[in-house]
Amino acid sequence: MEKHLKKLGIVIPDAPAPLANYKPYSISGKQIFISGQLPIKNNKLKFIGKLGKEITKKEAIDAAQICIINIVAQLKDACSGNLNKVKSCLKLNVYLNSSNKYANNADVVNSASSMLVKIFGKKGQHARSTIGVNSLPMDSVLEIDAIFEMK
Amino acid sequence: MEKHLKKLGIVIPDAPAPLANYKPYSISGKQIFISGQLPIKNNKLKFIGKLGKEITKKEAIDAAQICIINIVAQLKDACSGNLNKVKSCLKLNVYLNSSNKYANNADVVNSASSMLVKIFGKKGQHARSTIGVNSLPMDSVLEIDAIFEMK
Amino acid sequence: MEKHLKKLGIVIPDAPAPLANYKPYSISGKQIFISGQLPIKNNKLKFIGKLGKEITKKEAIDAAQICIINIVAQLKDACSGNLNKVKSCLKLNVYLNSSNKYANNADVVNSASSMLVKIFGKKGQHARSTIGVNSLPMDSVLEIDAIFEMK
Repeated sequence: MEKHLKKLGIVIPDAPAPLANYKPYSISGKQIFISGQLPIKNNKLKFIGKLGKEITKKEAIDAAQICIINIVAQLKDACSGNLNKVKSCLKLNVYLNSSNKYANNADVVNSASSMLVKIFGKKGQHARSTIGVNSLPMDSVLEIDAIFEMK
Repeated sequence: MEKHLKKLGIVIPDAPAPLANYKPYSISGKQIFISGQLPIKNNKLKFIGKLGKEITKKEAIDAAQICIINIVAQLKDACSGNLNKVKSCLKLNVYLNSSNKYANNADVVNSASSMLVKIFGKKGQHARSTIGVNSLPMDSVLEIDAIFEMK
Repeated sequence: MEKHLKKLGIVIPDAPAPLANYKPYSISGKQIFISGQLPIKNNKLKFIGKLGKEITKKEAIDAAQICIINIVAQLKDACSGNLNKVKSCLKLNVYLNSSNKYANNADVVNSASSMLVKIFGKKGQHARSTIGVNSLPMDSVLEIDAIFEMK
């Protein structure tokens, strides 16, 4: 797995600390529930505002990929550092900070899904819900949470 | 089950393909996580726009029932075609494409719940969350995802 | 547990009935899925409207704590009246009835998390997602659902 990530040029950072008094993940049997992750990199929220207003589609695609990297960072922590323990991604919920007018944001959400499949291959394939909402923590453009299964 | 569905006049179609690079459902032990389903019938999204604006309450009730039919179609696929394997519906999340002004949409969401109980009887009873949001994929009026348990 | 609640001055009421034809919770193995709970007290929805408009931050903090009390009431019912059976809180999803303009609502959501930790100690620590939405059932200012694990 580490070799595969290196080949992809993907660096999994230390898991971001939760923003408040909750846990970054919880474990139930073989399931791992991961808290909603924001596009935070080097302790800084990178994309602030609504998709289609303050944030372009291209920027939101970057934001989605950072959220996935942060999800994988939490997952790695939950697996005691060994991502080979991951059996599959069960569910991804993608929340987009949206204006009231509909905009086709499929490319943004698909970039999150693709990133997960790029990292984990077939194990990264998941069920998904996409929801456009009018406010997210710290005015982030995106929030993604996930459920994984361990081997 | 097939006889019961016939008596109800309900036809479970082939499971709709996901709109992008994710899976229609995933399985973890006895749990089945179903991706957010839209009111798609014969490969066409039937109800587009916001409830109370472009879409009437009556139309949204139809939309909710189509979402449930699509959820059951995915579930049937997950159960290798045999819906008798279903033990219970654990959770339904109903997302309504809403304007910012509150409108009483209980009838719409209840029609989804009732449809599930109509199909599965007591096994169809579920925990539920209802959330009004300002944007959904393809500007659908409704999105419903679900978690089921197999026997 | 009962002694601890008494010391905190927290009274867990009878579990509120669901507003319609769904269940207040469902059980799958050791997991309990709790339906979205509103700030209902003595059969009355206490806080109606959007956070930052009709409802102040202080009021929303009260609302969040009532939602948690109602979640614990459902949980107690699911555990046949014995909260000592609770192993941990796996996930909290907090939905805030928000205007389109971002407002920092972390204090509100944190008060929900803190209430859970106050009641259950370390077992009450959970993964969390916070989502600002533009409409909730009965125009409630807040809705919280949860997944718990029993021993």
